[in-house]
Amino acid sequence: MENSQLAIKPPVKVVEWIGDADGLLRLLDQTRLPNEEAYLDCRTSKDVWEAILRLVVRGAPAIGVAAGYGMVVAGQEVAPEAEVMAGLESAAAYLESSRPTAVNLSWAVRRVLKRAQDAAGGGADRPAIHAAMLDEARAIHAEDEALCLAIGRYAAPLIVACQGVLTHCNAGALATAGIGTATAGMYVAHAGGHAFTAYCDETRPLLQGSRLTAWELLAAGINAVVITDNMAAQVMKEGRVQMVITGADRIAANGDAANKIGTYGVAVLAARHGIPFYIAAPYSTFDLSLGGGDEIPIEQRGAEEITCGFGRRTAPERVNTYSPAFDVTPAELITGIITDRGIIQPVTAENVRRVLEV
Amino acid sequence: MENSQLAIKPPVKVVEWIGDADGLLRLLDQTRLPNEEAYLDCRTSKDVWEAILRLVVRGAPAIGVAAGYGMVVAGQEVAPEAEVMAGLESAAAYLESSRPTAVNLSWAVRRVLKRAQDAAGGGADRPAIHAAMLDEARAIHAEDEALCLAIGRYAAPLIVACQGVLTHCNAGALATAGIGTATAGMYVAHAGGHAFTAYCDETRPLLQGSRLTAWELLAAGINAVVITDNMAAQVMKEGRVQMVITGADRIAANGDAANKIGTYGVAVLAARHGIPFYIAAPYSTFDLSLGGGDEIPIEQRGAEEITCGFGRRTAPERVNTYSPAFDVTPAELITGIITDRGIIQPVTAENVRRVLEV
Repeated sequence: MENSQLAIKPPVKVVEWIGDADGLLRLLDQTRLPNEEAYLDCRTSKDVWEAILRLVVRGAPAIGVAAGYGMVVAGQEVAPEAEVMAGLESAAAYLESSRPTAVNLSWAVRRVLKRAQDAAGGGADRPAIHAAMLDEARAIHAEDEALCLAIGRYAAPLIVACQGVLTHCNAGALATAGIGTATAGMYVAHAGGHAFTAYCDETRPLLQGSRLTAWELLAAGINAVVITDNMAAQVMKEGRVQMVITGADRIAANGDAANKIGTYGVAVLAARHGIPFYIAAPYSTFDLSLGGGDEIPIEQRGAEEITCGFGRRTAPERVNTYSPAFDVTPAELITGIITDRGIIQPVTAENVRRVLEV
Repeated sequence: MENSQLAIKPPVKVVEWIGDADGLLRLLDQTRLPNEEAYLDCRTSKDVWEAILRLVVRGAPAIGVAAGYGMVVAGQEVAPEAEVMAGLESAAAYLESSRPTAVNLSWAVRRVLKRAQDAAGGGADRPAIHAAMLDEARAIHAEDEALCLAIGRYAAPLIVACQGVLTHCNAGALATAGIGTATAGMYVAHAGGHAFTAYCDETRPLLQGSRLTAWELLAAGINAVVITDNMAAQVMKEGRVQMVITGADRIAANGDAANKIGTYGVAVLAARHGIPFYIAAPYSTFDLSLGGGDEIPIEQRGAEEITCGFGRRTAPERVNTYSPAFDVTPAELITGIITDRGIIQPVTAENVRRVLEV
């Protein structure tokens, strides 16, 4: 079982390094989904910077992996006559500026830079520094794959017990360099031969569920069914799903979980119908400095995403909107949190600490 | 108070007869909303037939009123040499074929035809038959206005107690010839000087909430705020609304209410947050031949409304969808049903019979 799981791959290569240290970064262009599977080759740090800015690659883990490789690309650009470490430090600051609030981006860029600094400090020449950077970027990539697989291993038995599962937004392979978080158990169960239906909330306003989650599940051969967000209650009432699983953006010490707007409502509906509601997330999503979900600020988005979401105006001019980007699901509504280190269940502050081993 | 309420008009004339029996039917073209307030003049029965088919006019009560006037238009077309009643009977069947499942349409057409038959049987000449038909069509129109106003009178005190209310889909002035059903109390409260915010679920897949409800409330000067359907839970959690009110398509003898998909989920969320959930509907929406909501069949809609709803494709080709057109909210989740004959509260089969006086 362990061995077969190690072979489970995502349905598509979201981030891929082609060649050796002189190679290039190939990204799935997610802005072209769901209509087209196209790839963008990044040969300069500007290519990488623009790709991150334009959301060609999105999802915190995937951005981190792409940015790590972005440093390798940047290393190729340092002129022979220039001081290599100064050039790399400048490139790191440049790449970080593409999406300043993306924590994984800065973390990955700094990690690769540190590896270069250590190599340089140890007297390595430029080719050796460059090779060390690629090695570090590949390590970040492999670690993300392993985190996803570990989550998938814990989640798969739960999926196997279901004929239908429901998910919200995209916490999938497209957001990581592996098999995703909320989707990880689905890919593992599917690889093991389990047939099931994955109901995908379309997830207004930006439709990550219909554009991305349905696309990647379909690409893997899983029976994805798209519903509008307001159909979830009826799907539950009809007994079509036996489990809900979503990702999370940030989880507090008590297990309260912030995720895409709509997640909280789905959790309330699941409770009403006696359907288990799970969150899937790696250890790094936990922010133990936050006692509870009340401390997580709720970002507001602009009106246009609601009033002119997809090509035409669907609400009157000058109308007001209210657009929270995410919501917080209280721990009491979460059946369990599936991490790479095990399942936190029931969701209590004590069990969070115990499973995360902190 | 009674007198001032009698003056309350909808923000727009959805259906209007211009002139005498030789006049014309003017319809607000709802297919051009929310971007444009345009009117369509119908001078032939074919104009009326196409307008109903194309959803220029929609909502069961508004369709009924339009179809009643449609018979008057049809009467103008009967050639001088033709047998008038045969011509009218043919026109009735033609108009009914525009939307065969719309009960109000057939009811209104048959009612105007019956009036013509009675007049003809009484020896009336053609101008007198024609005048009687217009009189009957105007009566249907006035009755619908009165039903809406009666609902509004019962609902207004509930709205006045709120700073924020939430509604789903469009059970508004645009669906009736009066001030709507779910919106009726809002218009009466607004006319009485009460300031409040109306949160409008956009209501995927067809966006009646953002396209229609927000438009008509804004036109009336009410502070409409559009949210995506999956934001309702967060709006409730933040204490922004103190009441939910929606319309209904069909209500069973025990008070179970079928309405636009998503209504049931909103009712579950309201219960979780201790927010009263009301249905507003005239007596004619009740189908007392149905014991409970389980007997109401759930229509399925096509995939395109989900996958290509906003002018471009937002889900992968070949993906499956599941698209129930409406859902049933069980009586236990409904705080009260506001009818033109009073408020049914608590919602029990006994109270339904008592308030409806059946």
